[in-house]
Amino acid sequence: MPVMTRTVTAAVMLIGDEILSGRTQDTNLRTIAHFLQPLGVQVREARVVPDVRETIIATVNELRARFDYVFTTGGIGPTHDDITADSMAAAFGDTIDVREDARAALLAHYPQRGLELTEGRLRMARIPASATLIANPVSGAPGFQIGNVFVMAGVPSVMRGMLQDIGHRIEGGAVIHARTVRAKGLREGDLSQPLRDLSETHAAVSLGSYPWMRTDAEGRPDYGVALVARSADAAALDAAASALAELVRAQGQTPEIDPVD
Amino acid sequence: MPVMTRTVTAAVMLIGDEILSGRTQDTNLRTIAHFLQPLGVQVREARVVPDVRETIIATVNELRARFDYVFTTGGIGPTHDDITADSMAAAFGDTIDVREDARAALLAHYPQRGLELTEGRLRMARIPASATLIANPVSGAPGFQIGNVFVMAGVPSVMRGMLQDIGHRIEGGAVIHARTVRAKGLREGDLSQPLRDLSETHAAVSLGSYPWMRTDAEGRPDYGVALVARSADAAALDAAASALAELVRAQGQTPEIDPVD
Repeated sequence: MPVMTRTVTAAVMLIGDEILSGRTQDTNLRTIAHFLQPLGVQVREARVVPDVRETIIATVNELRARFDYVFTTGGIGPTHDDITADSMAAAFGDTIDVREDARAALLAHYPQRGLELTEGRLRMARIPASATLIANPVSGAPGFQIGNVFVMAGVPSVMRGMLQDIGHRIEGGAVIHARTVRAKGLREGDLSQPLRDLSETHAAVSLGSYPWMRTDAEGRPDYGVALVARSADAAALDAAASALAELVRAQGQTPEIDPVD
Repeated sequence: MPVMTRTVTAAVMLIGDEILSGRTQDTNLRTIAHFLQPLGVQVREARVVPDVRETIIATVNELRARFDYVFTTGGIGPTHDDITADSMAAAFGDTIDVREDARAALLAHYPQRGLELTEGRLRMARIPASATLIANPVSGAPGFQIGNVFVMAGVPSVMRGMLQDIGHRIEGGAVIHARTVRAKGLREGDLSQPLRDLSETHAAVSLGSYPWMRTDAEGRPDYGVALVARSADAAALDAAASALAELVRAQGQTPEIDPVD
């Protein structure tokens, strides 16, 4: 069976001063990457940008031209610093106003939870005219898709909820699988030449080497290298994983081989 | 006393396929932002880019022109996928080779730890000709500064070690302080109009609103809003924090006010 070779790419755009200031630790990039991997979409770049209209517009316009899909998080709440929806409309040259379908999504959620549809909350029904809504099963206020851009909330639980309404819209390509071979007690410097050779003989596979250094529960140094092979070609991936394990054994260590992911 | 108003900006560039694939959760952005804040340097953008030479070159050339400083992490180890040093030399039109000062840094570290200076490890002494070294107290192999770009390791403990040799090289500007007022039991939609008014009357201050939603240890919903004021002007910041606390009390809740950070 021939390997499916169409490559589908994505960029992730995290919008918010709070990530750049270090106040908030982002976890959405990783969630999105894990969500897209089995769909056959490869995240090739991520940006963190501040809550500045011109920056948001310029960044989304650059990314949507360069990648098949763009996923944004943040800036779609009810407060004055939530400027993502208006910025997206401007980036696409679209109009924006309160939309009835979005208002209905809010009304389906708020009264039964004892919440009032205040003017501030109604602002979350402002959606660009050409966009389609992304359902928010967690807190009601929808995200939206405009062109190849998916606009989601920044709160991780809400973003995860929105991803449930996105998978069916994605046309993916080759699924990149990974095999990880862990070599406890080895250092990258012990492996660099054989790894380089291996990367040349296994050209269908991308090989990465990720050292770890930490202290275990008893205060002893715990170090090693995780060798990761990635490929859309399952047979090539298996061959590379076997070769990596052999390389670790040749250094006198016992490899731990993770299942495919 | 006049407020110090010079604004000094930085971008952070995280290099590595493993962050984009979701395999590795980045924490370096947050560490760098927290390190720079008291030095008077504001992180204004972050990028995550893959281990692709042309992308690294284009990205660092764009960022070093747009920001006062650029901080990179990742890709300076001994293996074939570590291409950051060579990419930086190319970006600056500089030559690169094994340097004696860098080799000395490796030799000062390895033999006493029983490590051999293999050909792979010697690769970590490849440093662009015009760069100055950044000491690595954790694992020996140095980072480097080239122009306004600081090139550091990706392993968090090693990167933190390298930051110790960077602070003295930074000329910072206005230090942005933050005050956080927490309003448990409130939702953003309850606050959006008064917050908007407050952001207009406190123009010297940037106001952000960050909702949280989680489940506490007993399984009950725990929600609220963190209201964050940021400014280089201490008096304006205090006034804004008081006004934010008052706004929370007006909604019938008790504000928790964090100390300045």
